[in-house]
Amino acid sequence: MDVSIGIDIGGTNSSVGLVDREGNVLKTQRISTTRYPVAEEFIRALDYQITDILKHGSEEYVLKGIGVGAPNANYHRGTIENAPNLPWKGIIPFKDIFQTYRNVPFALTNDANAAAIGEKMFGIAKNFENFVILTLGTGLGSGIILNGELLYGHTGFAGEMGHLIMIPGGRECGCGQQGCLETYVSATGICRTAVELLAKRKADSPLRKFKIEELTSKHISDAAEQGDSIALEAFDKTAEMLALAIVNTMVFASLEAVVLFGGFARSGDLLMEPLKKWVDKYVLVFFRDTFEIIFSTVTEDHAAILGASALAWKEVAKLK
Amino acid sequence: MDVSIGIDIGGTNSSVGLVDREGNVLKTQRISTTRYPVAEEFIRALDYQITDILKHGSEEYVLKGIGVGAPNANYHRGTIENAPNLPWKGIIPFKDIFQTYRNVPFALTNDANAAAIGEKMFGIAKNFENFVILTLGTGLGSGIILNGELLYGHTGFAGEMGHLIMIPGGRECGCGQQGCLETYVSATGICRTAVELLAKRKADSPLRKFKIEELTSKHISDAAEQGDSIALEAFDKTAEMLALAIVNTMVFASLEAVVLFGGFARSGDLLMEPLKKWVDKYVLVFFRDTFEIIFSTVTEDHAAILGASALAWKEVAKLK
Repeated sequence: MDVSIGIDIGGTNSSVGLVDREGNVLKTQRISTTRYPVAEEFIRALDYQITDILKHGSEEYVLKGIGVGAPNANYHRGTIENAPNLPWKGIIPFKDIFQTYRNVPFALTNDANAAAIGEKMFGIAKNFENFVILTLGTGLGSGIILNGELLYGHTGFAGEMGHLIMIPGGRECGCGQQGCLETYVSATGICRTAVELLAKRKADSPLRKFKIEELTSKHISDAAEQGDSIALEAFDKTAEMLALAIVNTMVFASLEAVVLFGGFARSGDLLMEPLKKWVDKYVLVFFRDTFEIIFSTVTEDHAAILGASALAWKEVAKLK
Repeated sequence: MDVSIGIDIGGTNSSVGLVDREGNVLKTQRISTTRYPVAEEFIRALDYQITDILKHGSEEYVLKGIGVGAPNANYHRGTIENAPNLPWKGIIPFKDIFQTYRNVPFALTNDANAAAIGEKMFGIAKNFENFVILTLGTGLGSGIILNGELLYGHTGFAGEMGHLIMIPGGRECGCGQQGCLETYVSATGICRTAVELLAKRKADSPLRKFKIEELTSKHISDAAEQGDSIALEAFDKTAEMLALAIVNTMVFASLEAVVLFGGFARSGDLLMEPLKKWVDKYVLVFFRDTFEIIFSTVTEDHAAILGASALAWKEVAKLK
C-alpha cells in the first residue's frame, strides 16, 4: 500500500504521521523538538521515527514521499530560515540533509501553506481553485491557492498575511513592525483589544477580574456567550479588522473562498456574524457575493500532518 | 507580415493601432467613443478602422489577432460591464459582437492589465515573472503578473488595487467605499492631500493662491521643485500610503518588482525618494531588498495600444 509521511515541526514537539492517498491518517507519533539542539540530530531522530512508523500494522507500506510543515520553511530552497521558535539558528538546509537519509520525493513549506494544500486535497476547499486559508491561533498564518496551485512568490515566502500592516504605528508585532494584522486578529490580538476596551469603557465586565497577562481568548468568548458588552465589542472589532483584510484580498486576487482554521476560529458565530456584517459593509461592489467565508472541516489535531502529507503527494504527482 | 491590432477604449476617444510582433507600433488611428451611444455601432466603426489601417503602407499585412484594453473589461467573459465612463450601460458582450465581424483570436481586458502584459512582453518587465504595474493617473489601476501570467482571479476582476481600503472611513471614493488607495495615491489624491495640509499647516505656500477645484498635481510638483514645504509634505504623505500598499503586496504575493506608470509617475524623484524611505521603514524583514521599484520605460502615448496588442499576441500564442 502506497503511503506518504507528513511531518509537523513545532516549537516544542513535532509529529510524524503515516497517511494514505485518500488522506486517512493511519498512525501518528510524536517526538520532542527541543531535545535536539542540533538540526542534524533532529533529522536523524525523525528518520528513525519514519522507519518505526512504517512497521505499523500488518500491511506492507511503500513510502512514496515525505512532506514537512515547519515555521519559516522555504519551499524553493528546502530550508528552514531563522525560525525564532525553533532550536536551530540560521539557515538549515533541511531538505538536503533529509535526502541523505531517504531519497524519496521531499518537500517542506510553512504550516499555513501546508494547511492550504491539505484543505485543497482533502478538505473543504476540494472544489476551489482560488482561495486562502487563514490559520487563527496565537498568531495569524495564511496559505494562498491561485489557479489550483500554492502561491510561493518570488522569494518562497508569499502568504504572510499575518504581517499585513493594517494600522501604521499601531500595535507592536513580534516581526519588528507595528500594526500587523495578527496583532489584532488572533487569540492574542483579541485579548489586546479587550484590554483596550476595558480601559476605554466604564461598563461592568467579568473580564475585569482577570490579571491582564492571564486573560485568554477563551475568557473573552465565554464572556461574550454570557452577553458581556465588552467581550462582544472585542469580537466586533476583531471581525472588522479581519473583514478589511479579506475585502482587500479580494480586490487584489479575487478569490472564491476564505477558509478559517485554528483554535481562534472555533469562536464560531461569535466571529462569523460580525465578520459577515463588516465584509458586507466594506466589500467593493464588483466582489459582492462572489466569495464564501467558511470554517475548515479538517480536525485540528490531524490538520498539520494532513497538510504536510498532501504536500508530499503533490511532489509525487509531479514526477509522473 | 504578421500584425496584431491593439485597441484602447477611452471615455472620450479610442485608438486603434497596428503592431508587429516586436512591439513596433506601425500606425495609429483615433475614433470618438462618445459618438456611438450604441455599442454595436461603435464596434462596426472599429471594424471599419481596422480595415482601413490594414491598408497602411506598401506591405501586405496578415491580421493575426485583436486585443482590447477598456475600463471594466472582463477577460473571462469577453464583456465590458457597467463602465461608468463609457456610453454603453449594462453588460456589453463585446467579444461576441466583435467576432461576428472578424473571426481572429480576440481578447479584452482592462487598461492596467493590458499595461502589465505590454510591460512583460515589450517593456521593462521582460525578465520578471512576478510583478505588479501601478498606473498612476487620475485614479490608480493595477495589473498583476504571477508566474509570468496575468492574475485574473475567480471573477476576472483581480488587480483592482486602487480600491484597497487603506483608511476605513477615510476619503470618499467613486466606487462607493471610503479610504481607497486611489483617493490618496493618484493625481487627484495628492491634490486632496495638499488641500488637507493647507488647512493643517500655517506655512506660506504658492499653492494657497489656487482655487481648490483648480489645483492640479502639476501645481504641486512645480511647488515641490521650488522647495515648498507643503508640496513636499504632500509628496511624502502620498509616498507613505503607496509604500504601505507595496509592502502589503509583498507580504501577500512576494513579487520581484513594482513598475510605476502613468502621468503621476512622471513626478519622478519627488515620488520615488520618499517612497523608498517609507518602503524601507515598513517592509517586513523577509522581503527587504527582494524587490525593485522602477518606472516604466514604455512611452505613454503608445502604452495602451501596445498592451492591448500584447494581449492579442498572447491569444495568438495560445493557439499553437
